[in-house]
Amino acid sequence: MIDHAPKTHLRLGVAGIGTVGAGLLKLIERQDELRLPGRLEVTAVSARSRSRNRGVDVSGYRWFDDPVEMATADDIDVLVELVGGSDGPAKLAVEAALKAGKAVVTANKALIAERGLEISKLAESRDNHLLFEAAVAGAVPIVRALRNSLSGVIVSRVSGILNGTCNYILSEMLRTGAAYEDVLADAQRLGFAEADPYLDVSGIDAAHKVMILASIAFGAQPDFSKVFVEGVSDIEAMDLQLADKFDYRIKLVAEAYRANGEIGCRVAPVLVRKDHPLAQIGGPLNAVVVEGEPIGRLTFTGPGAGAGPTAAAVMGDLARLFEGRSGPPLGKLTGDLEGRFSSRAPSEDMASFFIGARLADRSGVFAALTEALAEADVSIDKIIQDSAGEDETAPVALITHPTSRSTLEGVLAAISEQAIAADKPRLFRVETRS
Amino acid sequence: MIDHAPKTHLRLGVAGIGTVGAGLLKLIERQDELRLPGRLEVTAVSARSRSRNRGVDVSGYRWFDDPVEMATADDIDVLVELVGGSDGPAKLAVEAALKAGKAVVTANKALIAERGLEISKLAESRDNHLLFEAAVAGAVPIVRALRNSLSGVIVSRVSGILNGTCNYILSEMLRTGAAYEDVLADAQRLGFAEADPYLDVSGIDAAHKVMILASIAFGAQPDFSKVFVEGVSDIEAMDLQLADKFDYRIKLVAEAYRANGEIGCRVAPVLVRKDHPLAQIGGPLNAVVVEGEPIGRLTFTGPGAGAGPTAAAVMGDLARLFEGRSGPPLGKLTGDLEGRFSSRAPSEDMASFFIGARLADRSGVFAALTEALAEADVSIDKIIQDSAGEDETAPVALITHPTSRSTLEGVLAAISEQAIAADKPRLFRVETRS
Repeated sequence: MIDHAPKTHLRLGVAGIGTVGAGLLKLIERQDELRLPGRLEVTAVSARSRSRNRGVDVSGYRWFDDPVEMATADDIDVLVELVGGSDGPAKLAVEAALKAGKAVVTANKALIAERGLEISKLAESRDNHLLFEAAVAGAVPIVRALRNSLSGVIVSRVSGILNGTCNYILSEMLRTGAAYEDVLADAQRLGFAEADPYLDVSGIDAAHKVMILASIAFGAQPDFSKVFVEGVSDIEAMDLQLADKFDYRIKLVAEAYRANGEIGCRVAPVLVRKDHPLAQIGGPLNAVVVEGEPIGRLTFTGPGAGAGPTAAAVMGDLARLFEGRSGPPLGKLTGDLEGRFSSRAPSEDMASFFIGARLADRSGVFAALTEALAEADVSIDKIIQDSAGEDETAPVALITHPTSRSTLEGVLAAISEQAIAADKPRLFRVETRS
Repeated sequence: MIDHAPKTHLRLGVAGIGTVGAGLLKLIERQDELRLPGRLEVTAVSARSRSRNRGVDVSGYRWFDDPVEMATADDIDVLVELVGGSDGPAKLAVEAALKAGKAVVTANKALIAERGLEISKLAESRDNHLLFEAAVAGAVPIVRALRNSLSGVIVSRVSGILNGTCNYILSEMLRTGAAYEDVLADAQRLGFAEADPYLDVSGIDAAHKVMILASIAFGAQPDFSKVFVEGVSDIEAMDLQLADKFDYRIKLVAEAYRANGEIGCRVAPVLVRKDHPLAQIGGPLNAVVVEGEPIGRLTFTGPGAGAGPTAAAVMGDLARLFEGRSGPPLGKLTGDLEGRFSSRAPSEDMASFFIGARLADRSGVFAALTEALAEADVSIDKIIQDSAGEDETAPVALITHPTSRSTLEGVLAAISEQAIAADKPRLFRVETRS
């Protein structure tokens, strides 16, 4: 049985001493400058390499090679899990800690998004703490806001820019006109992208985060298999620049919505109007917009990653543990999570869409494109054809009036058959609300 | 002794059934759609007039003419105080409730800003709950964020647009070029300003709110007498429009800062660069920017007033009461609030300043103005003189390089003596950081 009296002292075991772990150890060294309700003491750490230089001295802490062993050590009250991954040592350590009556604070979005239901059940069965503010949007305290402060709001939509790497890449491609691969390579050099950028650029990282927010906001069981995910790697600089001429920005938008009794979650490049709150989020920043009754719209913006911001989010969770009670991990008890995510593919949703492509170098292609659209009953809201570049293909971009994605996929197949486009056309939804 | 076990049922007495109170009663009627951890029941209400039409039926609730009597009634667990004012019935009812072991949730910024120390002490002495999320920035959950989620952040500055009435007036004056009095009258007609707008336009309302945020962020005793307060009623439309030409917006900025061991709080019109987060807040919105280590900057934006947003904030506090423990009202126990606000007038602070004025209708006045500045060793960063209007006075605006307010007050006195300006010149600080 867990003791829920307020605490004045917590002993931590920190698993994973990478950038964030080192940032956390440094912040704990400065705890006298913080507003914590008690004293934190790091008693043990665990990581893969003991000798790696982390810019922080770990020699004073008891060392564990195995985070699972550390998670159950007598002299820790809290496992801080910064290993990452939905399986393997992170999951094993979290489970071991919860079973042993230790509180868990984690920054692991994959674990909560993909295993959140079973891990939360385990925490609840022991009446134990499981907190994960650092898993979403870094220093932006959106998890706790949705779970607690906004529990009196009937949320209709949570949307955001939840991956700073993608946002940085898109901002830079627009600013410089450089190609995706070149900007990604720069981002890696500057530390805005990982050596292996797959989880970021594929949209999976943002999908993990939005699934966590959606579960809480809608009181629904997390179900990662239901998220529609599209990444940024197909976007061309010309798409960003022609969208700009239409007064839109292309952003990787993660969103969760509730409409007509269905809830859904998707991550995809979306055109948002320049006066939309998400359009104004540049570089590696994150932002979350919460819409609902009776509040209208709230926007939270801040650094979504990095040692300091993530460590501060972990610290906020640790502060909460001093209070002695933290409530169900997902806001409601898992047994009360009545919502289920819809797996409906968004192909039939009516929306305006953006198409970007380079037209082949021969006469009549522009007419053939507009004719293909007309034949499918798709009417055009705006269209731009720019002058041909050195490769003599002409960049073209258009925004349709509301139609379905599947209709446009048919049009693009026809265009491909007639070799109208010189590249693979891009198809993105347009958010017309400001 | 207060029971700190989690609750499943709370009985409310609501004092003050104006716009917000009616909004709260309506939201409670929809509580099945919310994510509350328990059941709310309104058992009693109190207001000045029983017969007033509020768009919500109050006949089913027990009625009290006297909120103090209601505050101590056996069948309420929580006093929801929506009366307002730092003294009188609001304070008496809150004190009576806390003494009687009732939790208190209030939207009363004046009470917390001006009497926060004594009321918090009273709550602590009974180990009782006092929550006031709705007192600051409406639906934006900034009080709880600062108190809890961000307790691991070393805050250096909290700034914001905390009065939607003033922000609406300034946005409209810039957009239309209309005079302050005309826009205020429009705002009153549209419900964006009260019949008696004094607390809003004087800056006092924003000052109340920023004092609350500052006390929590810096762990300091609230001391309203130390806030430097300037309102919006002297601002001319020409100031907003010429500032716009310099790529700045004039906003009523409420800010609290910690620097060189001093903490201070001030509310005044400030020029912020158009790419500053506060510049982009238009109309009646509120925004709060929190800066500190190791996070950089977080921005929270949303509706700062109105029935729905304020009721949702009250609801977030009520949700917390179900958890059974809420911590010290100001984040730290009053005895641990070591910070003291400095009363230093900002007249010696070095900064860039904006001066706006109409030059008198005679030759040589522009030269006389620039000479007066040169004599005081004030160098000009930018200056604009627009063509004279129908009254033949010429609008002029300038931004200085860093100097002190007192130096510029001397220059303005000299200008006034020489009758250079045809109106009373305006002097506003310029925030040069984006």
